[in-house]
Formats: sequence, structure tokens, C-alpha cells
Amino acid sequence: MKRHARAQQYLVGVDVGGTKILAGVFDRQLRLLAREKKSTKPFLGAAGVTDRIADCINEALAAAAVPHAAVAGLGVGVPGLIDPRGQVVQVAPNLHWHNVPLAHLLSRRLQMPVALVNDVQAGAVAVQAAGTGRKFKHFVCMFIGTGIGGGLVLNGTLYRGAAGLAGEVGHMTVIPQDGPRCGCGNRGCLEAVASRSAIVRRIASEIDRGRKSVVTDLCDGDVSRIRSRIIAEAYREGDKLVRRVIDDACEYLGIGVANLVNVLNPEAVIFGGGLMEALGDRMLPRITRAAAAHVVAAGPGRVRILDSSLGDDAGILGAALTARASAR
Amino acid sequence: MKRHARAQQYLVGVDVGGTKILAGVFDRQLRLLAREKKSTKPFLGAAGVTDRIADCINEALAAAAVPHAAVAGLGVGVPGLIDPRGQVVQVAPNLHWHNVPLAHLLSRRLQMPVALVNDVQAGAVAVQAAGTGRKFKHFVCMFIGTGIGGGLVLNGTLYRGAAGLAGEVGHMTVIPQDGPRCGCGNRGCLEAVASRSAIVRRIASEIDRGRKSVVTDLCDGDVSRIRSRIIAEAYREGDKLVRRVIDDACEYLGIGVANLVNVLNPEAVIFGGGLMEALGDRMLPRITRAAAAHVVAAGPGRVRILDSSLGDDAGILGAALTARASAR
Repeated sequence: MKRHARAQQYLVGVDVGGTKILAGVFDRQLRLLAREKKSTKPFLGAAGVTDRIADCINEALAAAAVPHAAVAGLGVGVPGLIDPRGQVVQVAPNLHWHNVPLAHLLSRRLQMPVALVNDVQAGAVAVQAAGTGRKFKHFVCMFIGTGIGGGLVLNGTLYRGAAGLAGEVGHMTVIPQDGPRCGCGNRGCLEAVASRSAIVRRIASEIDRGRKSVVTDLCDGDVSRIRSRIIAEAYREGDKLVRRVIDDACEYLGIGVANLVNVLNPEAVIFGGGLMEALGDRMLPRITRAAAAHVVAAGPGRVRILDSSLGDDAGILGAALTARASAR
Repeated sequence: MKRHARAQQYLVGVDVGGTKILAGVFDRQLRLLAREKKSTKPFLGAAGVTDRIADCINEALAAAAVPHAAVAGLGVGVPGLIDPRGQVVQVAPNLHWHNVPLAHLLSRRLQMPVALVNDVQAGAVAVQAAGTGRKFKHFVCMFIGTGIGGGLVLNGTLYRGAAGLAGEVGHMTVIPQDGPRCGCGNRGCLEAVASRSAIVRRIASEIDRGRKSVVTDLCDGDVSRIRSRIIAEAYREGDKLVRRVIDDACEYLGIGVANLVNVLNPEAVIFGGGLMEALGDRMLPRITRAAAAHVVAAGPGRVRILDSSLGDDAGILGAALTARASAR
């Protein structure tokens, strides 16, 4: 215990999503020692969710046998806008939060330094440090889940934009007229046609209308149980409905990728998220082909379209890296 | 004469377009002393066009009464991809150039240091130094002319991307299916529906099909003579055809602006080019309104959509600034 307390060599990274909270304990070499999961339950409000975050961290620390005093820093990724000092969640739509001083609440409770970070920007930082992004100076990350979030690494650093809002790649318009309504209120956003939620929604509504699909069996007749794994299985089995929905999504993702390539000229566009993990081998070649039809042909070399290689851990690793950077 | 030779206090900036060459002589405070213009005549090939560039520079220097020996540096903006050292034009589609060592050709001829720069990136540098961009750390420039080019100023510096190709904002896809063919070979690019050329093409083809418009009178029945000024005049007179074509273009420009705002979170998007100069007061409010329908609503502050305030001189000024930066 004393050794730990003196060394303060551990980092904790937390990824707070709209559905689940993930907490990981890392050693100095950023090796993951333990990992815990909890449902978020946003309806409990900011105080209730803060309790659940703290519980999840305590459980992960216990599982790693790391005392609180040995933690050099805690980083927390949140799906929202964070103030420039990394202390307050200014807005987090999926959590219904406004101006929640989460860093203060957690540091008072856990007695360790806390830094907040946008969840997707944390993911991009992780991809840069430990994922496919290691090789590149300029790349864009796209994380496909409930929404589609992005992180830009330009000149070797995360680019946050004027107000910390850069990387909203899911809200590029891909259907200019009468596109489907997006969660943001606009129409025709990439996220509204190619996020995992949009894909699930479209599959479920077609099944509701009587369309046949192996998905019905795979989710035991309950379309609310469609997960990335089920979509991937149906796709691999050649299910016609799922193939059409996924292939359409890849077309739009290709347009999004091409826009980013034309504007930013990155070395790579790197995809993450559960659906990509489950079906990247089929989706990435389609996205690459679709992008090629919209990238302005010029110049030496080509952009590479890749998987993050980090799976579900990008968020907690990026949060731990944020903690390390601010503990310095 | 001797005083000039010792001081080397002048800069020359050249803007080589597909149609015309513009050369300007600037003093140390970047005040424009003289300005000359020549048609480009790309059919003469690289050697012939290089002659015309040199002639144009010599005439501008003569008009300013500045001897060659008093020039600290010459910057040349070219519509193409420039090598990272600013010496060779690797590709310039509108000029049909491949690997033209323009810096060497001109410095041998004129006995002064030469730096090449992409024309639109030069424009963005000028907008940053002397135009509406002065107030901002993060902004995007969009120049509307034969095509639609862009320059990104991020963290106070021009962002060039991995291969110097960043800023191809005119090739964002705004019509995903069966859009009009773009000069780049793809379909549905912003440039194919909202560049000055695309606007002129659409007006001309409607007139050819018998559509009535005041443009017919304004260009004396010769649609090949439609210029920005004529379009602006017809718009102000309330011409229905021109209003529809311009208003449609503004819708698409708004989508392009919104994509850039969502991805980069700049403080401003700044427009340049002859059409904007002639009709910006009417177009900018429309573009702003269209963009608002596609920008994801969040965060403090709003992006500003502005005119460059530099008119036709952005290119030569940016080239002169490039010369100054490399002469240091």
C-alpha cells in the first residue's frame, strides 16, 4: 500500500455513454489492469449518474487491487461539450445535462485529480496513441454507434476548433432534400442514415411492415434486441434486408469520408465502434469504394480507410491518456 | 537606384489563373504600388505562359519604377498542387501542367528569389493578414470562380494537409445521386452547381432553350459574354431566371458551409471571388440562412459568414506574403 501511495502510478479512464458506463484501471505503461461496466440510467439525473460513475470506478479499482491514493489521475469521457479547462460538462444531449461540474463532484468524492474530455475526442487520442493512428500525423476518426462522432488529429494533435466542437462528422448533410430527421433536429445528416441506431431503426421498421429477415429469429422476435453482433451475423448469412440497409449506409459513409478527404487531405480515415468491430471486414471495402467515387482525384498517394484496432477500449484509454496529460 | 538595390524592400505577388495573370508590386508595408494584367493563353504551354508571367512582372515593376535588384522576393500563386518546397508545380489541371519547375524558370529569368504557392491557399493567407480573417484564429475561405476553392486557417496557420491538398471544399458532395458532372470527373460536387461557371452554364442553357431573361439584353445576345457583373445586375433587377439559379446555388453553398462548420468548428467562413464581390450583399444572407438549417445546434457563439473584403487582390497579396515568408 505504501509503495502504491508513493508511486501514484495508476491512471483511471472512464467512458460515460448514454447506455453504459465503462471504467478501466491502467498502469504507467497504459496496460489495462481491470475493467468494470455499469448501465448509465440517465433518468437518475446528474447526481444519480455521478454516483454510478463513482461506484463503477471503485469496483474497477477494487478488481485491480489499486488503492485510491495510488491513482495519479482520473479521466472521464462524456458525450458532450466540455469547458476548455476540462472541469464542467456544458451540454450533454444524450444525458440531458447542462453545466454539470462533474470533475469537482468526482474529485471531492474520490480524492483524486479529475479531467473531463469529450468521449469521441478521447477515442481519437487513444487511436493516435495506441491504435491504427500511431503511423499518421493527419487523420480523422469516425465512431459509429448511437450517433456518428468524429475526432480530427491534424499536425499530430487533436484539433478541437474554436469552441471545442470540431469533429461533428455525423452531421454532414448527405441527403440535401427531404432526408430523414436526425436527432439534432436537422434533416439528411449522415448520422440519420448510417449510425448503428439508424440502421437498427430501418431494419426494425421493415420487419414491422412484414419484411422477412433472419434478424427476426436472431433476436427471438423482439426487434428491440437487435445488436451489432446480430446485424453482423445476418449480413454474413446473406440476409437481403440487412445487406441492403448496410450497403446503403456504406454508400453514405463513403460520401462522408470523401468530404473529409477533400477538405482535410488526411493520411487516413479510421473507423471505430461496435458495428465496425463486428462487420468492418465487409463494410470498410464498401465504404472505400463509395468514397473513391467522390474524392477529387489529384496528388500523390491515397487516403487509407482503416479500423481503429482498439475495439471497445478506445474510450477508456483516451480518458486515461487525458488524465495523464493533465496530471503532468 | 542604389538605395533600392541596397534595401531590397519590395515584394512581387503574381496570381496565375486559367484566364488571366495578375502581377502586383508591393512595398515593405504591403501597400500595392502597381498592378498589371495579361491573358494567360494556356494553349501556349508552360514555356509560353512562363514568358507571359515574366512579361507581366516586368511591366508591373516598370509601372512602379522598381528595379529588379530591389525586389526581396517574388511569390507566384498557381491553381494546382505545389511541391512542399514551393519550387515545382506538380499538377495544374486548368493549365494542363505537370511537373513544371516554374520557380527555377522565373528566378533564372528575373534574378530574384521565387516561391510558389497554391492560388487559393495564397488567398486564404491574404484574408488572414489583411482581410476579414484578421480577427479570427480559425476560419475557412471559399473562393467562388471557375471552380470553388478553399483555404483552411486553423490555430492561426494555413493548414495544408498531408500532401498539400487540403481545402478542396468545392468537391464536397451536395447531390448524392445523379448530380451534374463536375470538372473533376465526379458527380454532385458543390462546384458543379454553385461555382460561377456552373451558374453561368445553367443561365446560358435556359436562355438557349428559349427562357426569357434580362441577361440576353445585358450580354447583347451573346451568352458567352455573361460575367459576374451581368449576373449581379440581372439579380438586382429581379430577373426570375437569375434569381432562381442564384438562390439554388446559395442553398447548396449553405450545405457546404454547414459541413465545414460541423467538422471544423471555425469562427468564420469567408467568401471571396468576383461573384461574391458583385452580389455578396444578396448571396451571403441566403447562404447564412441555408447553412443554419444544417449546422448542428450546440455550443456557445455562432459562426460568422462574411465577405473577404479584399476583392480581386487577395491572390497577388497572398503570393507577396508567401514571398516575404520565404525570403526571411
